[in-house]
Amino acid sequence: MMRLLVINGPNLNRLGKRDPAVYGRDTLNDLEQRLAEYAKEHHLLIDTFQSNHEGAIIDKLHEADAQYEGIVINPGAFTHYSYAIRDAIDSIVIPVVEVHISNIHARESFRHLSVTAPVTKGQIVGFGLDGYELAVKGLLNVIRGKK
Amino acid sequence: MMRLLVINGPNLNRLGKRDPAVYGRDTLNDLEQRLAEYAKEHHLLIDTFQSNHEGAIIDKLHEADAQYEGIVINPGAFTHYSYAIRDAIDSIVIPVVEVHISNIHARESFRHLSVTAPVTKGQIVGFGLDGYELAVKGLLNVIRGKK
Amino acid sequence: MMRLLVINGPNLNRLGKRDPAVYGRDTLNDLEQRLAEYAKEHHLLIDTFQSNHEGAIIDKLHEADAQYEGIVINPGAFTHYSYAIRDAIDSIVIPVVEVHISNIHARESFRHLSVTAPVTKGQIVGFGLDGYELAVKGLLNVIRGKK
Amino acid sequence: MMRLLVINGPNLNRLGKRDPAVYGRDTLNDLEQRLAEYAKEHHLLIDTFQSNHEGAIIDKLHEADAQYEGIVINPGAFTHYSYAIRDAIDSIVIPVVEVHISNIHARESFRHLSVTAPVTKGQIVGFGLDGYELAVKGLLNVIRGKK
Amino acid sequence: MMRLLVINGPNLNRLGKRDPAVYGRDTLNDLEQRLAEYAKEHHLLIDTFQSNHEGAIIDKLHEADAQYEGIVINPGAFTHYSYAIRDAIDSIVIPVVEVHISNIHARESFRHLSVTAPVTKGQIVGFGLDGYELAVKGLLNVIRGKK
Amino acid sequence: MMRLLVINGPNLNRLGKRDPAVYGRDTLNDLEQRLAEYAKEHHLLIDTFQSNHEGAIIDKLHEADAQYEGIVINPGAFTHYSYAIRDAIDSIVIPVVEVHISNIHARESFRHLSVTAPVTKGQIVGFGLDGYELAVKGLLNVIRGKK
Amino acid sequence: MMRLLVINGPNLNRLGKRDPAVYGRDTLNDLEQRLAEYAKEHHLLIDTFQSNHEGAIIDKLHEADAQYEGIVINPGAFTHYSYAIRDAIDSIVIPVVEVHISNIHARESFRHLSVTAPVTKGQIVGFGLDGYELAVKGLLNVIRGKK
Amino acid sequence: MMRLLVINGPNLNRLGKRDPAVYGRDTLNDLEQRLAEYAKEHHLLIDTFQSNHEGAIIDKLHEADAQYEGIVINPGAFTHYSYAIRDAIDSIVIPVVEVHISNIHARESFRHLSVTAPVTKGQIVGFGLDGYELAVKGLLNVIRGKK
Amino acid sequence: MMRLLVINGPNLNRLGKRDPAVYGRDTLNDLEQRLAEYAKEHHLLIDTFQSNHEGAIIDKLHEADAQYEGIVINPGAFTHYSYAIRDAIDSIVIPVVEVHISNIHARESFRHLSVTAPVTKGQIVGFGLDGYELAVKGLLNVIRGKK
Amino acid sequence: MMRLLVINGPNLNRLGKRDPAVYGRDTLNDLEQRLAEYAKEHHLLIDTFQSNHEGAIIDKLHEADAQYEGIVINPGAFTHYSYAIRDAIDSIVIPVVEVHISNIHARESFRHLSVTAPVTKGQIVGFGLDGYELAVKGLLNVIRGKK
Amino acid sequence: MMRLLVINGPNLNRLGKRDPAVYGRDTLNDLEQRLAEYAKEHHLLIDTFQSNHEGAIIDKLHEADAQYEGIVINPGAFTHYSYAIRDAIDSIVIPVVEVHISNIHARESFRHLSVTAPVTKGQIVGFGLDGYELAVKGLLNVIRGKK
Amino acid sequence: MMRLLVINGPNLNRLGKRDPAVYGRDTLNDLEQRLAEYAKEHHLLIDTFQSNHEGAIIDKLHEADAQYEGIVINPGAFTHYSYAIRDAIDSIVIPVVEVHISNIHARESFRHLSVTAPVTKGQIVGFGLDGYELAVKGLLNVIRGKK
Repeated sequence: MMRLLVINGPNLNRLGKRDPAVYGRDTLNDLEQRLAEYAKEHHLLIDTFQSNHEGAIIDKLHEADAQYEGIVINPGAFTHYSYAIRDAIDSIVIPVVEVHISNIHARESFRHLSVTAPVTKGQIVGFGLDGYELAVKGLLNVIRGKK
Repeated sequence: MMRLLVINGPNLNRLGKRDPAVYGRDTLNDLEQRLAEYAKEHHLLIDTFQSNHEGAIIDKLHEADAQYEGIVINPGAFTHYSYAIRDAIDSIVIPVVEVHISNIHARESFRHLSVTAPVTKGQIVGFGLDGYELAVKGLLNVIRGKK
Repeated sequence: MMRLLVINGPNLNRLGKRDPAVYGRDTLNDLEQRLAEYAKEHHLLIDTFQSNHEGAIIDKLHEADAQYEGIVINPGAFTHYSYAIRDAIDSIVIPVVEVHISNIHARESFRHLSVTAPVTKGQIVGFGLDGYELAVKGLLNVIRGKK
Repeated sequence: MMRLLVINGPNLNRLGKRDPAVYGRDTLNDLEQRLAEYAKEHHLLIDTFQSNHEGAIIDKLHEADAQYEGIVINPGAFTHYSYAIRDAIDSIVIPVVEVHISNIHARESFRHLSVTAPVTKGQIVGFGLDGYELAVKGLLNVIRGKK
Repeated sequence: MMRLLVINGPNLNRLGKRDPAVYGRDTLNDLEQRLAEYAKEHHLLIDTFQSNHEGAIIDKLHEADAQYEGIVINPGAFTHYSYAIRDAIDSIVIPVVEVHISNIHARESFRHLSVTAPVTKGQIVGFGLDGYELAVKGLLNVIRGKK
Repeated sequence: MMRLLVINGPNLNRLGKRDPAVYGRDTLNDLEQRLAEYAKEHHLLIDTFQSNHEGAIIDKLHEADAQYEGIVINPGAFTHYSYAIRDAIDSIVIPVVEVHISNIHARESFRHLSVTAPVTKGQIVGFGLDGYELAVKGLLNVIRGKK
Repeated sequence: MMRLLVINGPNLNRLGKRDPAVYGRDTLNDLEQRLAEYAKEHHLLIDTFQSNHEGAIIDKLHEADAQYEGIVINPGAFTHYSYAIRDAIDSIVIPVVEVHISNIHARESFRHLSVTAPVTKGQIVGFGLDGYELAVKGLLNVIRGKK
Repeated sequence: MMRLLVINGPNLNRLGKRDPAVYGRDTLNDLEQRLAEYAKEHHLLIDTFQSNHEGAIIDKLHEADAQYEGIVINPGAFTHYSYAIRDAIDSIVIPVVEVHISNIHARESFRHLSVTAPVTKGQIVGFGLDGYELAVKGLLNVIRGKK
Repeated sequence: MMRLLVINGPNLNRLGKRDPAVYGRDTLNDLEQRLAEYAKEHHLLIDTFQSNHEGAIIDKLHEADAQYEGIVINPGAFTHYSYAIRDAIDSIVIPVVEVHISNIHARESFRHLSVTAPVTKGQIVGFGLDGYELAVKGLLNVIRGKK
Repeated sequence: MMRLLVINGPNLNRLGKRDPAVYGRDTLNDLEQRLAEYAKEHHLLIDTFQSNHEGAIIDKLHEADAQYEGIVINPGAFTHYSYAIRDAIDSIVIPVVEVHISNIHARESFRHLSVTAPVTKGQIVGFGLDGYELAVKGLLNVIRGKK
Repeated sequence: MMRLLVINGPNLNRLGKRDPAVYGRDTLNDLEQRLAEYAKEHHLLIDTFQSNHEGAIIDKLHEADAQYEGIVINPGAFTHYSYAIRDAIDSIVIPVVEVHISNIHARESFRHLSVTAPVTKGQIVGFGLDGYELAVKGLLNVIRGKK
Repeated sequence: MMRLLVINGPNLNRLGKRDPAVYGRDTLNDLEQRLAEYAKEHHLLIDTFQSNHEGAIIDKLHEADAQYEGIVINPGAFTHYSYAIRDAIDSIVIPVVEVHISNIHARESFRHLSVTAPVTKGQIVGFGLDGYELAVKGLLNVIRGKK
């Protein structure tokens, strides 16, 4: 059974509480339940992890290399300056796909640049929570070598 | 039956002939066949359109507003400078999703900025031809108001 | 009788349909009728031309040099990157006046710079459709050497 | 009777003496006479004001708010750095139209940016002294709510 | 009795009339009355001065050096370009504190940089008219050498 | 009784040890005692928190939303690049005021920009440790709706 | 017999009519006759193509790949922004040489950068119409593998 | 007898009081006496003028055109942003020479650029008050056509 | 016996696993053993510390000030944006030397700037793991005051 | 007989030894022999000069003005920063043509700008050693006034 | 007797031959004779030195430190990039004054910045050859400690 | 016996005379004696070379390729702009190590960028004259293939 990890970065534990016009009303819990159902339906194992600590995310990425076959990550605001997370992604073998809930290209200019994107396999941007399922689907294709 | 349009911009008629390391070996014809099968399977109507002419793409976007329920567009190199296509997307009512075959964030710096992304609903980047199916899937979610 | 040409660039065929808060509710047809009335009233011949094709606008500018005594142009989004239209304006002898419906200086920063303005005689910006009549009036002054 | 104010900024008292190739041979007095004739002809009241003092122009803008129905301003070189005049225009209720005698986009690069334009209703650029009459005409349209 | 001067720069005489959403509904007169009460309550002498003239503010800063023990200044839009006021502040001995009514960091980008801040003792930003009292309080601490 | 939280970011535990010419000789302990006295005197509850960990500060901001009525934060060097802390401040409901001990505008250029300031209510800069009391006072005004 | 294609971009149909001080008095027709004579003399087949349409040039580049052994292109103003033409050149197998009539490095700054040059074999700049013959000569060397 | 005008800009009335390490201990009065002696010695008429008001300096420049044969100006901080003074210098016929007491190239970076220098005949920078005598001497050479 | 601390930043626990062409095949364990042997050989006490947590590195730097006589740090990707680590280094008394395994100047442009280098004593760049020994040697010279 | 000079700048004496993938395997000697044969064949006198010394190249350019009828120069890396060579080319009367062996536009970004190109007649870029013959041919056309 | 050295940088040996509209018709020889006469008249010893070699100018600056009491230098185009000459000036004890014949601020933008100016005592710009005498006069004041 | 070359660039002959706070009191002669002793001690042959001439350093680098096994270079101010020295280093086979006496990252901003660093094996920065010995040590490791 394919094992995947979904990592959510800083402030994503506030989902549903923060700026519903941008991020929607579903909570992190809702997201994790949707992913659990999706996993069940598609015979996958999907673990989830959320942290506001850059270092904890880096540690998790390192550990995941031996435990999972691919990662979906929403690095939150770390997307725009954490070269350390970028290097962590670059240092592991399993493929990583980046996802953003909102259309970051239509928001403040500092959100237009992703320093992590160049070392991920692909990005899914702007589809709300659906984006996580698209990302898992895209990641599976990458893993199964269809690409 | 849901009617969708897939627009491919300049040089995508060269798919499979140009730089296979970056774009793969499948041709535009292969892509269109995959989309036809996908449409059949999901009971959709998917028309495709390719042009190297910026004006023709703008004309098509305008016409599509009354004929389709959503658009997937890969604007090719126009992504990086065609404010006219951006305005065309902005001038129509139906949702538009942007797709790129390669990971544009890992290529030349002029490819890092998309002038069309801010007026689309979302972007799918880096998943090869699979990205078109993910984009259709994401677009359907947007149309069905699940987002 | 003075012969003038009014050129409208990309997406201006969507006038009245696109973002009425910015561009108003009048359509391109309304604009052309107003110009026809204005022409009649002031004993002018005013032809109009709209295209979403950069090349078609360049061709028209070239042809116009021998057929008209002056041009009013709203280059739409081409204003901000079409050095080819700039060169076309620069390559003809008859005077050209630039017009914009909205106040481009109060919108997105990419709209603040006009690459065509340096080779036109003057610009009329922000007066809605009235701007076209002001532009024709200004153009007539330029042609009649009052300036 | 409609009451309008025309404000001329720094060095415009040198009109006709300074660089005739750029600004023409007419003096400020000639301009004011033309405006007086135009006012008479169109049943308007047009007062004029010129100052080389940024503060005096700000004071005048404030006072004008209760005395006139609209303003035409040529802020001269203040156009390019006086955020204080920008704020003054923004702080009053009556509409303001910006005019420039020469085509500022065809001159030194520091003249390409106007810090006042974003808070005015429109700009008339490059039509010589005729520009003032076009500006008054445009302003009247704005006031009469035709726009 | 401690003598202090509060200087308000350009357009602050429009307080209460200009953009109440940003600056509130109190007028300059209201502000000066609040400062008078505050002065009475805390046994201070607080004079106030407002001008839209950069030169008048510089003159006042020079004179104040021998007449007051400290200055609170809201340079208005001069904050962003008046190196002459910066030099005037730098040329006097008594301490100067800068105050802004609105949160300038959350407004247009030209308001993010203060050219006067580097030569003042401190800045109070975003607390509405309360900011003047906080500034006086902060200034007193500076003068009394508590800092 | 009003409950407030004062958060100090990285290296502020070194207060009094680091560069006394810039930051003074008082230690973090001295600061916390001053705030305790101030709280007693003004019948407030003021808790304090210091951490060198970006993630710990984000966690604290989230928790504080339900436990306090307002926050004073000195984000230390995180001020200049932590978009994650910016998002955390933006994601909570209670008001946040930013304070800096030194005049950051008179130091190295990388300290001139604050990425957190746009989402706080106000900033107090350059008043030494007194700045914390001014910030509490300003925060109270914001909470009590006086602004 | 070696088959070559010479492509001229926007406004080059105005040759001899536009700014003779920069481009000389010879027309496009004169240029094509000179190339015909040169071809005859050197036993080559040289076809010529001119268009003001970016899309038409891209189409021609694609078609040419199977019909010619090399291309000389003067992209006119497209040189400075058409990433789509750049990609078209990059997508074909036969060698492409870039030519400019005037010394673009001695003109406006926007003409100093060529976005197409990095994917061509070489550039010939500033030799007037002679440049085309030098370009053909250089192209032949490239084709004949002498380089 | 040659009539010259020496204009000193903002804060130069503080000479001798402000930052003696940079500007020396001599006052504006001392400078004017030295210039009076120099004038006497060299049979010149030298008037002096100082103002902190940009507008007053512009007015003076205009008036001077008919009353003097040349001007020495130290625009103080206006050097770095007053395009209005630049235009005033450009609008008069008599030659203008710029002088700075300190070596502005060795101070803050905003002092490295002079917006007035391009329209003056020459600059004398860094020689303290001696610079004024060198400037007068240089100006005389320019007037006498020796250059 | 001289006590030194070697700090390794984020992702350096992946040494030997990540991009061997850039970083070599030795692991962090190998590096620590080499340093242990070097310490023994030179009668030094060398402790090592690795963390992916910015905050943990700051804490360690603070503690180290009282426990060691000098520090060698490889801040990994934090080198390029952690002003907090920069301030931590600046806040301690013992000397710090920066080391990088690869030649950061020959890699991506974001790696060319070190925000920590200005507050360290020196940098050793590009010598692989040997660089740590060179850094210790350089640090000893600094401590022994030979420099 | 036409006398021409070919100048080769720094490191071109290493031709054939340095990076053959970029510069080919021919040595400077091979190049000079090819030019000698070309000269013989076309009844020209071609002298050659190579130096790694900027000053020596400037001296040579000055001397050449009286001894030759035209110059071909490959300034090597001086192309990108030697404003002194630029001025030397500008100070002489005979025409100068610039040549580069490799396609500098496809290499490091610092090689994209030529500070000498604006004062030369034309540039030949990317044709390997053949470029020198094309440059001589182009130079002859310039000299013979065919251009 | 005061011993001074006047250094002229690259291409100044072309004086009188190069661009007389900018530099005048006098030759380097004329300049040196004028300086000889000036020296005689003022009882000075003035040696002159010209070189197109950066290294030769650096060597001369070093030697001059022990042989002269001050230096006037016109670094020519080296002004704009030779940090090595800047360091040479900075490394010697005797004062150095910079002179430019033309008004460099009114020419190409690359001439607006002087990298040597920050380490000289003062600059004389734009007075033609007279500038050298003004520079000698200014230098004497610096040496005699009048400043 | 291993033969190494140490090259010192411009102004390093002034060592001990120039700015002792930055560069220390030892002279170039002292440095060369230290290197001679070091060579003796470690059974190496170390030749030294100093020049203020960019061309002479390039010539030396070329010659050294056949005579030495490695080079330590301190390019002085050439570090920051000599692309010609960069190309010379790149054109030779033996390894080159860059050394700087002072911490260039803590000095003026123009010293932060090294154009030569990308083509050297490593850099040693900020350790005073000790840096040369560290550089030799690092170079030996590179040569001996330990890296």
